[in-house]
Amino acid sequence: MTIRVDNLFANLPELYESEQSLSLFEKPSIKIERIVSQSYSSPENFWYDQAEPEWVIVLRGAATLEFEGGRFVEMKTGDHVTIPSHAKHRVHQTGPETVWLAVHVKGE
Amino acid sequence: MTIRVDNLFANLPELYESEQSLSLFEKPSIKIERIVSQSYSSPENFWYDQAEPEWVIVLRGAATLEFEGGRFVEMKTGDHVTIPSHAKHRVHQTGPETVWLAVHVKGE
Repeated sequence: MTIRVDNLFANLPELYESEQSLSLFEKPSIKIERIVSQSYSSPENFWYDQAEPEWVIVLRGAATLEFEGGRFVEMKTGDHVTIPSHAKHRVHQTGPETVWLAVHVKGE
Repeated sequence: MTIRVDNLFANLPELYESEQSLSLFEKPSIKIERIVSQSYSSPENFWYDQAEPEWVIVLRGAATLEFEGGRFVEMKTGDHVTIPSHAKHRVHQTGPETVWLAVHVKGE
């Protein structure tokens, strides 16, 4: 049995006004991914509308999420939120280098 | 709909040679917990033997895991591993303040 160690902050992409997702762990019931966002905003009028809840934490940098109805949620390093299923949201803005860890529940 | 923001590094306990777990998110299929370990080792001859895989990352500090058979895995901030089901392991030693995030798959 080999235990492989990877580092969340290694091999960060160089992006600009963009984001990159990387799957770290996936099972039928869950998916864990690293998301790197660099001065990123979701496209205008785009909303995530997910059938399953998502738990997400900012591990480097900062970001503001926007929820439908005009609620903005500011997140700094270490802040985590649970996004309920079908809570429409988008990335309003991230800092120049924001690293997230997102845990998606699948098929709950 | 209220989105609650909590910080992973807030309200850290003051422990000594001990550890504390705090559930952050729990569904039938997964559990996410913060574990704070301060100069902690698992009891001698104690082994975790989990029926389901666990994904774990060190987010502050450092730690060494020991796997059955004498393999030691050193982890620093940002390092993450997947611990397969029934991979017997224990905490060999953590630094003075180590904060982990553990994602347990349940009933896969």
